[in-house]
Amino acid sequence: MDYAKESLKLHEQWKGKIEVVATVPVSTKDDLSLAYTPGVAQPCLEIQKDINKSYELTRRHNLCAVITDGTAVLGLGDIGPEAGMPVMEGKCVLFKAFGGVDAFPLCVKTKNVDEFVETVYNISGSFGGINLEDISAPRCFEIERKLKEKCDIPIFHDDQHGTAVITLAGLTNALKVVGKKKEDVKVVTSGAGAAAISIVKLLLSAGYKNITMCDRKGAIYAGRDGLNWIKEEMAQVTNLEKKAGPLSEQLKGADVFIGVSAPGMVTKEMVQTMNEKAIIFACANPTPEIFPDEAKAGGAAVVSTGRSDYPNQINNVLAFPGIFRGTFDVRASDINEEMKMAAAKALADLISDEELSADYIIPKAFDPRVGKAVAAAVAEAARASGVARI
Amino acid sequence: MDYAKESLKLHEQWKGKIEVVATVPVSTKDDLSLAYTPGVAQPCLEIQKDINKSYELTRRHNLCAVITDGTAVLGLGDIGPEAGMPVMEGKCVLFKAFGGVDAFPLCVKTKNVDEFVETVYNISGSFGGINLEDISAPRCFEIERKLKEKCDIPIFHDDQHGTAVITLAGLTNALKVVGKKKEDVKVVTSGAGAAAISIVKLLLSAGYKNITMCDRKGAIYAGRDGLNWIKEEMAQVTNLEKKAGPLSEQLKGADVFIGVSAPGMVTKEMVQTMNEKAIIFACANPTPEIFPDEAKAGGAAVVSTGRSDYPNQINNVLAFPGIFRGTFDVRASDINEEMKMAAAKALADLISDEELSADYIIPKAFDPRVGKAVAAAVAEAARASGVARI
Repeated sequence: MDYAKESLKLHEQWKGKIEVVATVPVSTKDDLSLAYTPGVAQPCLEIQKDINKSYELTRRHNLCAVITDGTAVLGLGDIGPEAGMPVMEGKCVLFKAFGGVDAFPLCVKTKNVDEFVETVYNISGSFGGINLEDISAPRCFEIERKLKEKCDIPIFHDDQHGTAVITLAGLTNALKVVGKKKEDVKVVTSGAGAAAISIVKLLLSAGYKNITMCDRKGAIYAGRDGLNWIKEEMAQVTNLEKKAGPLSEQLKGADVFIGVSAPGMVTKEMVQTMNEKAIIFACANPTPEIFPDEAKAGGAAVVSTGRSDYPNQINNVLAFPGIFRGTFDVRASDINEEMKMAAAKALADLISDEELSADYIIPKAFDPRVGKAVAAAVAEAARASGVARI
Repeated sequence: MDYAKESLKLHEQWKGKIEVVATVPVSTKDDLSLAYTPGVAQPCLEIQKDINKSYELTRRHNLCAVITDGTAVLGLGDIGPEAGMPVMEGKCVLFKAFGGVDAFPLCVKTKNVDEFVETVYNISGSFGGINLEDISAPRCFEIERKLKEKCDIPIFHDDQHGTAVITLAGLTNALKVVGKKKEDVKVVTSGAGAAAISIVKLLLSAGYKNITMCDRKGAIYAGRDGLNWIKEEMAQVTNLEKKAGPLSEQLKGADVFIGVSAPGMVTKEMVQTMNEKAIIFACANPTPEIFPDEAKAGGAAVVSTGRSDYPNQINNVLAFPGIFRGTFDVRASDINEEMKMAAAKALADLISDEELSADYIIPKAFDPRVGKAVAAAVAEAARASGVARI
């Protein structure tokens, strides 16, 4: 199918993929007096007395904003706020279908970090949580950090953390398949954007020890010229031996490659230089860093991509709907590392040891158990880590 | 019925009065590829090329934001942004039920006019129009003016203009009932807040000549001490004889009283000093400036209130859903005076000369003809005044 052409035709018919509907009746005078004036004054006064009541007397408890500034939409780059909205609406559809979360799309007309933060903070009282989307790096890190500081609701940048959760889940199972341990493996990443950095942070939280990140200039190491602040920060906790050199150099003897970068970055020959039973996560989309057959020809034992037409798809829909579902279920004030790790574990655990194979390390997007399993694990982790509010 | 108690109980059950739903399927891989990646890239690129396509490829064409800062919620005053949300959700329910408009509630956490304007402007690309709600005067005038200057979508402050449209409609028919002409009547208002000022402006646009506004200190006239900027502005176009003195003084010989102020401001004795066949619009809610029986005992010929248990209810639901429906139908860039006057005329015209009586000057809230009639008139006026974009 020509997805581009078909999708455009459908979008022209759909004229929007979400709708705001009323859930209460207003067909009589009494209905009006109860849903609106004068009756509505009472719930207003209750919230004035105790702001927590806003979660009980309005839709806030289930409402997530999906917010972009349009600077890094899909692989399209900075196409502007309004142009990002078809993606945001699509995301809202997935939130509802896979997590039962009411999600509402917003685009923000500023590229200034502080103005963006101020705008989102100013409307944060309307929502139970905020999902940031398609914001360019390294601005996205600063935006997320500042919003987390200011807001009393969870802030989640799915391009970072959703991808990280699923990668951790997949890698957990891939290591089982090849019989290696997270403490021992050498991990090399290609890409140093939002997803790569969040993946590396989550792997470090989860106990991985030896990680080297590569950008277009090769390995990132402490002291390398021209690193931006976030790469500088990552250089403090990765590549502790401060090795320099291109990706091809770093891959020699590595156990795991994680690509969230660009098509064709890795060749069969490069995979041949990796350790035996290599694991390849080639997530550039739609064209991966290396195609699965090439990677296997180079000796890879397990291969994962972002595509639905190959096994082991890294698909964010596995994570964010369940993560927000679980977060909202316990009214968590944050989505913290513990909750992300719990989500990853829940995803990995859905595949039993008997089912586990090189071609089945990650649950499928339409596996009906996923949303609930992730939600339950996230809610439990929120409670255990003290951020649950009910 | 004890509306306060019942309404609170219902709000606790409802847990929100709106819901965001998905209108497209995502049950197969192909569905996902069309509503989301990779297909969704194509509609994004179309909008990047031509921003007007955002009205055709996303829900924007039918989406109205209902936005407050919580500073003047109902009669409750400054109760805070979150506490205003039950009203905003209620408003969204009415938008949908009476106008087929998707409305989404937002509260903004700032009382600073420029910050509020910046925040709303920054998210304006997500919507087809903005309905401001329950913002205190005189801030609301400055906010509305600045937003109209900055944004390329219609901005409408319903507390001002909705009330004004229905008052103009009711007054048009009331004058027919008593056989007087708009050019000749003396109009006195009590209240100088958002609603009063917008009513007076619209009456002036519609051809009324002789209007005196009163606030708590009595008649407003050019040069009176301590007027804020908006009252100063109004003093230039009202009370041209610069009469001073309390409301009771101004009412002597007046033909029309319009109250959007406080309970009990007008007595039977004051009505007795008005011109014969006086018209009384006593819209303070729930307790009017004077109750209808008192007003009639004082000699009033036509009485209107904001209450549903008396005839001639001034109820905003008669106006805003149809106004936005008509505005969206022609993708108008503004809701201008012409469109408001057209809405008022459409409302007034729904009552035929045969039906018209002192107790039936305004259509009823549930009259099924209202939304469509207002929408059609507003759309036509938008075309005629050059603000329609399709």
